[in-house]
Amino acid sequence: MKHLLSTHDLDVPTVAAIMNVADHMSEINARSVPKVPALLGRTVASVFFEDSTRTRVSFETAAKRLSADTMSFSASTSSVNKGESIRDTIETLSAIGVDAFVVRHASSGVPVSVTEWTDASVVNAGDGWHQHPTQALLDAYTITRELGTGNTLAGVRVAIVGDIKHSRVARSNIDLFARLGARVTLVAPGMLLPAGLAGPGITVTDALDDVLPDVEVLYMLRVQRERMDAGLLPVGGEYSARFGLDERRARMLSGDAIVMHPGPMNRGIEMVMDPAELPGSRILAQVRNGVSVRMAVLFRLLGDGQLGA
Amino acid sequence: MKHLLSTHDLDVPTVAAIMNVADHMSEINARSVPKVPALLGRTVASVFFEDSTRTRVSFETAAKRLSADTMSFSASTSSVNKGESIRDTIETLSAIGVDAFVVRHASSGVPVSVTEWTDASVVNAGDGWHQHPTQALLDAYTITRELGTGNTLAGVRVAIVGDIKHSRVARSNIDLFARLGARVTLVAPGMLLPAGLAGPGITVTDALDDVLPDVEVLYMLRVQRERMDAGLLPVGGEYSARFGLDERRARMLSGDAIVMHPGPMNRGIEMVMDPAELPGSRILAQVRNGVSVRMAVLFRLLGDGQLGA
Amino acid sequence: MKHLLSTHDLDVPTVAAIMNVADHMSEINARSVPKVPALLGRTVASVFFEDSTRTRVSFETAAKRLSADTMSFSASTSSVNKGESIRDTIETLSAIGVDAFVVRHASSGVPVSVTEWTDASVVNAGDGWHQHPTQALLDAYTITRELGTGNTLAGVRVAIVGDIKHSRVARSNIDLFARLGARVTLVAPGMLLPAGLAGPGITVTDALDDVLPDVEVLYMLRVQRERMDAGLLPVGGEYSARFGLDERRARMLSGDAIVMHPGPMNRGIEMVMDPAELPGSRILAQVRNGVSVRMAVLFRLLGDGQLGA
Repeated sequence: MKHLLSTHDLDVPTVAAIMNVADHMSEINARSVPKVPALLGRTVASVFFEDSTRTRVSFETAAKRLSADTMSFSASTSSVNKGESIRDTIETLSAIGVDAFVVRHASSGVPVSVTEWTDASVVNAGDGWHQHPTQALLDAYTITRELGTGNTLAGVRVAIVGDIKHSRVARSNIDLFARLGARVTLVAPGMLLPAGLAGPGITVTDALDDVLPDVEVLYMLRVQRERMDAGLLPVGGEYSARFGLDERRARMLSGDAIVMHPGPMNRGIEMVMDPAELPGSRILAQVRNGVSVRMAVLFRLLGDGQLGA
Repeated sequence: MKHLLSTHDLDVPTVAAIMNVADHMSEINARSVPKVPALLGRTVASVFFEDSTRTRVSFETAAKRLSADTMSFSASTSSVNKGESIRDTIETLSAIGVDAFVVRHASSGVPVSVTEWTDASVVNAGDGWHQHPTQALLDAYTITRELGTGNTLAGVRVAIVGDIKHSRVARSNIDLFARLGARVTLVAPGMLLPAGLAGPGITVTDALDDVLPDVEVLYMLRVQRERMDAGLLPVGGEYSARFGLDERRARMLSGDAIVMHPGPMNRGIEMVMDPAELPGSRILAQVRNGVSVRMAVLFRLLGDGQLGA
Repeated sequence: MKHLLSTHDLDVPTVAAIMNVADHMSEINARSVPKVPALLGRTVASVFFEDSTRTRVSFETAAKRLSADTMSFSASTSSVNKGESIRDTIETLSAIGVDAFVVRHASSGVPVSVTEWTDASVVNAGDGWHQHPTQALLDAYTITRELGTGNTLAGVRVAIVGDIKHSRVARSNIDLFARLGARVTLVAPGMLLPAGLAGPGITVTDALDDVLPDVEVLYMLRVQRERMDAGLLPVGGEYSARFGLDERRARMLSGDAIVMHPGPMNRGIEMVMDPAELPGSRILAQVRNGVSVRMAVLFRLLGDGQLGA
């Protein structure tokens, strides 16, 4: 595995292998000195053309715990000319000395292009509406460890709720969850459901209340507020009434259902109640597992198989 | 000691203990390799919702010299929703893995709230008009070491000059200096003097010239220019005439009086002369001691008592 | 050598010594763990009052590979008052603990002023139209290693093309290349040629096509677009027609001529063709050599002669 660009790059045995390494990383993260020399001398550059402090910090923490050096390059899309100049940036950083690029960009496909401009490994940290494969991996990992299903999601009932159409998280998770055997229900009105998502194990509805009593995993998507302003989504109040998680809906969940969200939450929009009042919330477990899973991915891309401790 | 939120958390023996450790840290800082493994594997996150490169760099240098990892998160208050979203940020960083948060915010009380959202230690690096306890510690430390008074300020004559009312530095220093035994004179007009500052050893005046000949320490406060524009302070020229340090006033100081300022200085407002011409200036000693004192605080919060070298 | 402020500080034997150390650094950079403990415990601060992510990352990578700590301080010129406040910034960072400042500023002479405010070493990373000495060193190093001329440019035919007048890169390179023995042709119209550049080995023309067949090194300068808008340069199309490198001109170069550019390129202005189609391009070699040369410079300023590995 040279790059991680899409969940489509990940077959089921590879996912299982990454999950097993992530378990090892979680054990390292619980140590009093949570650091191993596995990637000593390697440099991981986060190149974010779209801001996301959380994802960047998660990847950089993962890299540092493997003893890699980190380098951070942020640029608004506006200040860098499209296409050619991104290439110059990547080629320059590559010549300075980068072993893996972690790339986020508002346009789909940029991480794939980056692989043509460097010999380094490339990890897609989110490209447009397209893909966010480490999010799917950490979400699948979180479900398996919380539900105790080993490395599979066979038969697990998951509902993914909200603006499916514009969400790279939804697109990545639907693909990976379904291939790991989950029974996925997409909850959104037709206008927020892209074509081409149908497949084995995937059903669609716009009635959230009907779905709640039966799910084992309720996955709430983040709403991009600017899409509401642009008229692409129902305005806040209507969205919340139809797809928001409030206390009434939380009571409809079964006692051992878990609730997930990729963060950062929009309180009052998709998250209408205080998540601290949700016993089933695994939102912070997702964050914690994100570091372990990204360590496992970087180790797979850059390591020599020896953790060193 | 789990947190450092306010000078009120610090009793006199604790201050003395921190000062003794700071002496040790100053000795480390003078080495050719100024680094000890005391906090290896710990992560210190600076979370600044109000910009201050100097304070952030001072804390990060302190953390690195103790071999901690550092993480930096900046956000303007405008881009983060108040209250709940700060909570999400803290909970997320905490789940990624943070052992101490160094927090600055324009609103009083935010660092106290942060302690409810994380198991990590919290250091208040300045909250609104309220408190800035490491500034008070480094100022008290600087006075004791410059005047050779051991770990006490007993009987030391200190004047604090300027916009007392809006200054967290003033509020912190008045409290700590007075409890360490100093005789503190506050120099400001009534409109810039908040109620409730009276206490043993504290006197008030608006006549700077009367105070100068007798003080051992002249502490000039920084003026926030935006408060002048808002009419909360006399405009520049009048402020300088009444409370600024110029060459005439510098000549009124006794020969061994020292002059301090928390930085950054407003030249031409509270600092009307070139501080390089002030033999009594200890402004750079404050900066230098700031690193030692913050090392001592972080070591007390996160260390196990062993410096490791 | 305490500072590196200008190519004028560098005599020919010093340049040769730096080039020899840079060879050693290149060898280190090719290792699987490209790091030596040479500057362990030293702190290198990059203080950039004008943005340049590439130069900053190059210096910081160089510092880290020598095991120095790095500190980064960025400020737009507008937010810092000129003169005095830059002094306060430098004095403060110096008191926190900095061993070398890497300084970039839009005004000529700022790095020289910085040397008066600190005991630390100072490296000029570009000041106004004045100097950028590490760029000249890395360019000279690149030419010698690509052409195999040892540590000299004796007799090497170099053309420097474009906006000579406003370019610190041109000013630095002309000085250093000429003293190393190169025969330098400046290609620009009279309005873009400052007075006082004449000297042994330096000729001037405005006819790029006449020069191309004979040069061994074609050095394309970066155009600052804002100077076109301000009427200081011919607008884009005219500039490109006269001084841009397009495919027709590339074919006029001799087969073993090399093409250089300090980056970042303006595609469509001075670089009208895709540089990936230029077999003679050494633009990425310049970037790569930049890290080695900056390691050599920092080691010379801060090291004790022992690389440590």
